[in-house]
Amino acid sequence: MAKKIDVSQLLHGTELLKRGFARMQEGGVIMDVVNAEQAHIAEDSGAVAVMALERVPADIRANGGVARMSHPDMIKEIIETTSIPVMAKARIGHEGEARVLQSLGVDMIDESEVLTPADPFFHINKSKFDVPFVCGCTNLSEAVRRIVEGAAMIRTKGEAGTGNIVSAVQHSRLVDNEIEALSLETEDGLELAVDKILEGYRKLKDKSEFDINPKNTPFGDLEYLHNEVSSVLNEVITRNRLPVVTFSAGGIATPADAALLMQHGMDGVFVGSGIFKSAKPKIMAEAIVLATHHYDDARIVAEASAMMGEAMPGLEIEGLETKYQDRGY
Amino acid sequence: MAKKIDVSQLLHGTELLKRGFARMQEGGVIMDVVNAEQAHIAEDSGAVAVMALERVPADIRANGGVARMSHPDMIKEIIETTSIPVMAKARIGHEGEARVLQSLGVDMIDESEVLTPADPFFHINKSKFDVPFVCGCTNLSEAVRRIVEGAAMIRTKGEAGTGNIVSAVQHSRLVDNEIEALSLETEDGLELAVDKILEGYRKLKDKSEFDINPKNTPFGDLEYLHNEVSSVLNEVITRNRLPVVTFSAGGIATPADAALLMQHGMDGVFVGSGIFKSAKPKIMAEAIVLATHHYDDARIVAEASAMMGEAMPGLEIEGLETKYQDRGY
Repeated sequence: MAKKIDVSQLLHGTELLKRGFARMQEGGVIMDVVNAEQAHIAEDSGAVAVMALERVPADIRANGGVARMSHPDMIKEIIETTSIPVMAKARIGHEGEARVLQSLGVDMIDESEVLTPADPFFHINKSKFDVPFVCGCTNLSEAVRRIVEGAAMIRTKGEAGTGNIVSAVQHSRLVDNEIEALSLETEDGLELAVDKILEGYRKLKDKSEFDINPKNTPFGDLEYLHNEVSSVLNEVITRNRLPVVTFSAGGIATPADAALLMQHGMDGVFVGSGIFKSAKPKIMAEAIVLATHHYDDARIVAEASAMMGEAMPGLEIEGLETKYQDRGY
Repeated sequence: MAKKIDVSQLLHGTELLKRGFARMQEGGVIMDVVNAEQAHIAEDSGAVAVMALERVPADIRANGGVARMSHPDMIKEIIETTSIPVMAKARIGHEGEARVLQSLGVDMIDESEVLTPADPFFHINKSKFDVPFVCGCTNLSEAVRRIVEGAAMIRTKGEAGTGNIVSAVQHSRLVDNEIEALSLETEDGLELAVDKILEGYRKLKDKSEFDINPKNTPFGDLEYLHNEVSSVLNEVITRNRLPVVTFSAGGIATPADAALLMQHGMDGVFVGSGIFKSAKPKIMAEAIVLATHHYDDARIVAEASAMMGEAMPGLEIEGLETKYQDRGY
């Protein structure tokens, strides 16, 4: 694990290179870190990448207000002190932040619902960028729209900062279930599925049609998008899974949580507050990496569970003021 | 009581062995314990098994947040210090935790609503495990779904951590009443009952149909489930009771409470906060065991009631922020 990446190549890479980067993350753990010291702990524990941000999601949630891209000095400090890939978060639809992050030389951008969305209609046109992107999804439609827009990696959304795994499991099951249903569709059914996915460019979530002319999306006109969506859906059917590396994220707080999502067929996991809000972060980081790598060996997952100190305190989803999973569409 | 179990056999047991284990618990009291000292008190007082957990339900409720599987060291300590069977709790739908508990060698897993659920759609596929499971139910449909999924023992849910018996009585009466109604059904009525039970795999509680494809549950497709549900219902009709050992749980706080549920036809009772949140836990443990064994002899139940010190303080159900009985479906 923790493979070294030739960053210079990635920064000027093709679509293939972008997907190649994402593939290197397979079976791994990506950890949120807020300073160089945490980045070292992550690297030493076997993380395949770190997510540089000013506050872990649990603190973003507690602070409230508007959450934005982290300060460049903080991101640069982490890039300079670690040898594993460094990711950073941009607000949904905020190309300004994404361009800054690309110019800072981050290895991947997370267009993240943990930050306050910047655009109520559209996500970033990720295919315009050289740096690869990861995006969240709660269902297959969201995942396909993000891939069409150029995402090189998908993470199911969960509910970051809660230490509560239930939403991550929900989104994993919904994506799986829709992929299963897709494989049984007739040609007409498939056409309906394409239309349903394109609806995301014509409607705001839970609202009626919006005023943006869908012939003029940041990603091309509807005919172009129709073809792209069809093509991604065909890839999904052929592979019986999403055609990009798919991690789970949001609420993973124990080695058993990581193992559960790996059993659900994920390629790896993002762990945020779960590590640095636990009693013994260094040990928790190692325990989660161990459980992720050996998720199908219950004895090793049990050992990993025994290693850890107290897990982060968690939050019930029902009582949340802001549900991150409802951001973006 | 307190029969020694050949654990190695259980860990690799058949369905019959699993049910055999559960039968040994008949007529007994299973007590929540949070450390070796409490486990000794439970064993000495005549408990047939202990439930190892970090906090009793009253404290889980008071703490709020996310409640997860207990630390393996805590569970192992209790396994090592008692000679009676040791149970432990996994979150609803959390196969990762269940696999860890099986590998630790617990004698039975409680897939428990007292912990925060991990899967909004499905429970654990318990028939894949060698270790037996106990699950809660509020009505006959839930009980049958859990048995079809492989539960070897059922407990009516009650409302754990409240010291309030009303929900335990409610669920006991509902199950009894539905069993009674079932025995009067025509063949068509029985078919409707099967459909109602299968609805639990197509709908989320109190919500309309969900998007999970019922052809693709973790327990098999709908046709398979239809046959399994029919077969369990026929067993219910033949025996005029649930076909597995059935305990009561949730809110039992006095010897008279235990006697009441035994009079309702329960095979035994789980007592959580009721013992170790009372003024004199050791005496309360003995008093509840006495009342459970001699539930039909009012003089002995009166003696048991006279033995005890102050019972745990309780909670009204209406004012609860979280109702455990509403978790799972």
